[in-house]
Amino acid sequence: MKAHTEYLWFNTKKRREYINVTGDVEQILKRSQIKEGFVLVSAMHITAGVYVNDAESGIIRDIDEWLEKHAPAGLDYNHHRTGESNADAHLKNLMIGHQVMLPVTNGALDLGPWQQVYYAEFDGQRKKRVIVKIIGI
Amino acid sequence: MKAHTEYLWFNTKKRREYINVTGDVEQILKRSQIKEGFVLVSAMHITAGVYVNDAESGIIRDIDEWLEKHAPAGLDYNHHRTGESNADAHLKNLMIGHQVMLPVTNGALDLGPWQQVYYAEFDGQRKKRVIVKIIGI
Amino acid sequence: MKAHTEYLWFNTKKRREYINVTGDVEQILKRSQIKEGFVLVSAMHITAGVYVNDAESGIIRDIDEWLEKHAPAGLDYNHHRTGESNADAHLKNLMIGHQVMLPVTNGALDLGPWQQVYYAEFDGQRKKRVIVKIIGI
Repeated sequence: MKAHTEYLWFNTKKRREYINVTGDVEQILKRSQIKEGFVLVSAMHITAGVYVNDAESGIIRDIDEWLEKHAPAGLDYNHHRTGESNADAHLKNLMIGHQVMLPVTNGALDLGPWQQVYYAEFDGQRKKRVIVKIIGI
Repeated sequence: MKAHTEYLWFNTKKRREYINVTGDVEQILKRSQIKEGFVLVSAMHITAGVYVNDAESGIIRDIDEWLEKHAPAGLDYNHHRTGESNADAHLKNLMIGHQVMLPVTNGALDLGPWQQVYYAEFDGQRKKRVIVKIIGI
Repeated sequence: MKAHTEYLWFNTKKRREYINVTGDVEQILKRSQIKEGFVLVSAMHITAGVYVNDAESGIIRDIDEWLEKHAPAGLDYNHHRTGESNADAHLKNLMIGHQVMLPVTNGALDLGPWQQVYYAEFDGQRKKRVIVKIIGI
């Protein structure tokens, strides 16, 4: 069994952004030379998500509006008594999830035709990190 | 370390259906001859989910109604400007998740007494696929 | 490749409770002597969750109120025709997720600065279990 670990860094211009990282993950997989195994793609922050869905601008807007509807910014959250103002970003992270596991078969990501991996920033404009860790043979 | 990969195919009669795949996964695990490791069960489409919960018809109806309440069909989604009409299925996939990881101990799925693995179809009546990939020893 | 499996037991005083298990998982990892790999932390019940977020009392209350808002107790759920009264706990489990995968690098959990692992009980006052399974080298 081999293990290979790299980190992706982000510093978004906007508070919320959705970034397709599929190509980055594919390059890391290539460098690992692992042919069969699992790739974990996991946000290292509690105000960002990682998910698999479509690279289509309309659905990305729908996802953003849906998360804002169910975990809205600007409410009087308990968390804000600490001086923070980003409780909505914590809840968006929990709603969409902060990690995915990608299967590797014959040296490639074994994804369906429309599956793309996204980093979802909910409290940006600062340095954030995602771990990409692969184990396999 | 060994790896074993199979695919499950679905073509549901209804747009939304919930199918217990626990037995299928157990048979794949048996064929793999892996005794200790992890089984990834992951939908290869962005309009279907995979989750673990109860094999009880009432809770399955509750889950379906709950997903429809929070990610309803028929709204004027941005995604529909592409000609698609299934944005709700994308959001249901994100709400319930598209994959689970099952632990394997002593050659069996190491699940709790009521845990069953379900494929959740949100945009059916077409061929869809789930990957079942096992790594371990 | 090595595998190491332990179980955490819970019997909460209240119906809903949020318990930080990060230290327990770190001790299990230490006993495993695995240096590179993945730790699966997964609830073995369908009415409890496992998630990664902040060890701050305000956000824990926000998470609890948010789950109760989107998956409220006391509704006339279909599941309750079986005599059960905990359908809300099933839905809360699905909303927040029942498992996380933690990367292990250089013998330690490879988490971001604020990431803590929580067991979320939604139907407590009874014995419940979480599996902690590590595979790696």
